[in-house]
Amino acid sequence: MKKKRKVTKSVARNAFYAQSGGVSAVINASACGVIETARKHRNRIGNLYAGRNGIVGALTEDLIDTGKESAAAIRALRHTPGGAFGTARYKLKGLDKNRAEYERLIEVFRAHDIGYFFYNGGNDSMDTAHKVSQIGVELGFPITCIGVPKTVDNDLPFTDQCPGFGSVAKYIAVSTLEAALDVASMARTSTKVFVLEVMGRHAGWIAAAAGLAGHRAGDPPHIVLFPEIPFDQAKFLERVKQCVTDYGYCVVVVSEGASYPDGKFLAEAGTKDAFGHTQLGGVGPVVADMVRANLGFKYHWAVADYLQRSARHIASKVDVEQAYAVGKAAVELALKGHDAIMPIIRRRSAKPYRWTIDYVPLAKVANVEKHVPREYITEDGFGITAACRRYLEPLISGEDYPPYRNGLPVYAELRLSPVPRKLSTTFVV
Amino acid sequence: MKKKRKVTKSVARNAFYAQSGGVSAVINASACGVIETARKHRNRIGNLYAGRNGIVGALTEDLIDTGKESAAAIRALRHTPGGAFGTARYKLKGLDKNRAEYERLIEVFRAHDIGYFFYNGGNDSMDTAHKVSQIGVELGFPITCIGVPKTVDNDLPFTDQCPGFGSVAKYIAVSTLEAALDVASMARTSTKVFVLEVMGRHAGWIAAAAGLAGHRAGDPPHIVLFPEIPFDQAKFLERVKQCVTDYGYCVVVVSEGASYPDGKFLAEAGTKDAFGHTQLGGVGPVVADMVRANLGFKYHWAVADYLQRSARHIASKVDVEQAYAVGKAAVELALKGHDAIMPIIRRRSAKPYRWTIDYVPLAKVANVEKHVPREYITEDGFGITAACRRYLEPLISGEDYPPYRNGLPVYAELRLSPVPRKLSTTFVV
Repeated sequence: MKKKRKVTKSVARNAFYAQSGGVSAVINASACGVIETARKHRNRIGNLYAGRNGIVGALTEDLIDTGKESAAAIRALRHTPGGAFGTARYKLKGLDKNRAEYERLIEVFRAHDIGYFFYNGGNDSMDTAHKVSQIGVELGFPITCIGVPKTVDNDLPFTDQCPGFGSVAKYIAVSTLEAALDVASMARTSTKVFVLEVMGRHAGWIAAAAGLAGHRAGDPPHIVLFPEIPFDQAKFLERVKQCVTDYGYCVVVVSEGASYPDGKFLAEAGTKDAFGHTQLGGVGPVVADMVRANLGFKYHWAVADYLQRSARHIASKVDVEQAYAVGKAAVELALKGHDAIMPIIRRRSAKPYRWTIDYVPLAKVANVEKHVPREYITEDGFGITAACRRYLEPLISGEDYPPYRNGLPVYAELRLSPVPRKLSTTFVV
Repeated sequence: MKKKRKVTKSVARNAFYAQSGGVSAVINASACGVIETARKHRNRIGNLYAGRNGIVGALTEDLIDTGKESAAAIRALRHTPGGAFGTARYKLKGLDKNRAEYERLIEVFRAHDIGYFFYNGGNDSMDTAHKVSQIGVELGFPITCIGVPKTVDNDLPFTDQCPGFGSVAKYIAVSTLEAALDVASMARTSTKVFVLEVMGRHAGWIAAAAGLAGHRAGDPPHIVLFPEIPFDQAKFLERVKQCVTDYGYCVVVVSEGASYPDGKFLAEAGTKDAFGHTQLGGVGPVVADMVRANLGFKYHWAVADYLQRSARHIASKVDVEQAYAVGKAAVELALKGHDAIMPIIRRRSAKPYRWTIDYVPLAKVANVEKHVPREYITEDGFGITAACRRYLEPLISGEDYPPYRNGLPVYAELRLSPVPRKLSTTFVV
């Protein structure tokens, strides 16, 4: 006979979860981890509310009652891309500049008896979570704040990788491999240079992942352009020409953040529209046109944009598992009494790949950006080294296909039931 | 005891197979069907030679001996994108204009005792196959010519769909669904309009496939722009605005062939680079910039380009099966004595979807383009009708995942052994 634990109802407090910043193929897997784990601890966590459109939902008291979602719907979050509760590009200002925002958050949390704050995002969000923790104490409303790491850019420090990155990395590696086969087969009489633009404004991790597509010397991608390496046009064009001579074609993968030595983005190359306005084109067409103008090769270019970070259909199994794990760990760590921390992924072994969950203080994470180290980039600046490959390969391993119906993935559909408002005050974002 | 069939060695003649035009995720599945079926009839088909880089390989006597490839390598073609033997954008001129090319083909075919010509391509290729059949007779070297249909554009007549289309359709429908979830979750504070450019210079079939992503009124994609419908800027912008008001965001899918009533492509909208050269941008950025300039919404755009037609990782199972089937049928029909025909797919039933292989004379196929019929497009010109959905849905059904190793698909690697040349003459393409 099982021993019945004595549950004091009044001990349970509510929790708040929000998604922040750009979404990924697996941020909902983290949400799934948070919600399913919270549901296992009803004696400690009463209701779990999600912010509609992220932190904006908290500020405007627009909360979603995740308790109204079925277990099946929550389970389906694990294989659903995008941000199911809505997210926000909204950075809270510094405490000195806009203390009102933080006070408003505490006002809403107090009204709904929210004792736990789970914030699923990148760098800025970890900073926000840290500040909320501090201000809560100051205002006499202590709240447990846990950051849940997420960013396709992979630029958070301490964690071996950021959930979201492994899947976009897999998408880019697979797409590069496939498109390169296309170009290789056409090159004799058609396209000789193919340019793929990938995300990564400051860190070139996603571009680096394209490098996984090639295994031997001469394999595409022949050139990867990183934000970490100042762009040298002459050297680049020389290499393109050499590739076309040697292999018959050239596949180029370029980070959106690739820039000239003076720090100017290639994408701001000064293309103007018919009215003289600067055209905000992507860097992909800029690089392709540079090849055309200087070398005259027939080219094609692709810009994957949102397709890359929402491509749940080709998510990395490791990434999905890690995204879920950091969500689960966030709740478990909170219940163990931790505060102002972020769960991280620690690599225990490379081959076979083994990882565990650890954690670091939010104070150490906030506003630190992890770039691709120089030793991960080949000496010529155009490719990835063996060390980089060893780091990246495990992160894209395994497939985790969503279920399909009539040829399309079946993604979660939530009710998104609003929590009745308790405050008479409003807040304009 | 098995009865041993008497095989007269001299009966067997060699065969030639070539890939033509833009490749697809499943053109190699057709190659697989041709080669595996030919291997089952060694008493009739001796060696099967493939043209290196398509018909260019035939003209330059640059042939690949497919007999040197292992059974496993040939089997792997079924799940490998691109054109494994190389393809060519090379249209043979009319007989009156360049008879020398046709005579050269026959010269090479005669030298290698090639009695069968399997040509895997679209419209132009069917025309070529037809002409080769005619000229062979004229030159006293009769050769059995069979077209194997392939084109992601789905614009070949008679066949229910063109192998290659179902897979790009699936990729575009899945990508639209996924990217739309991304945009929906960000729209409150970020991107409100997302534009995806897809292939289709003259026929809007691929754009139509994006329509499969939405099931209910208001579901994305909210606007599909077809080459078949003259672009009305005022009406388009009005609709974008309405969508943002009603749904908070707007997803637009645009065919590269979308054009103004005067026939001018939207892509030629007159964007100039810093030097005043017309910028060959895609239509995606042009449409996105139109939205920005007139409505001021924050936007993102993606251009899938080659990614869409090489995306074997998300191929349609039906498409793979049909691609293989037309390759197989081509050989079987040739051996039954048919000539100057193309196998086609005939839909026998919509629900459940059932299809069989039939065939039509090449003469009827050549140079006929199948467009999206008006009744497949909603009255407002911005979406697909229920009839279109009924047509498209079976074509993207089923998944047929390639095998993976270390996170990446394992695609076929061929030896591509050259066939020793027999001619002393050369031919410059």
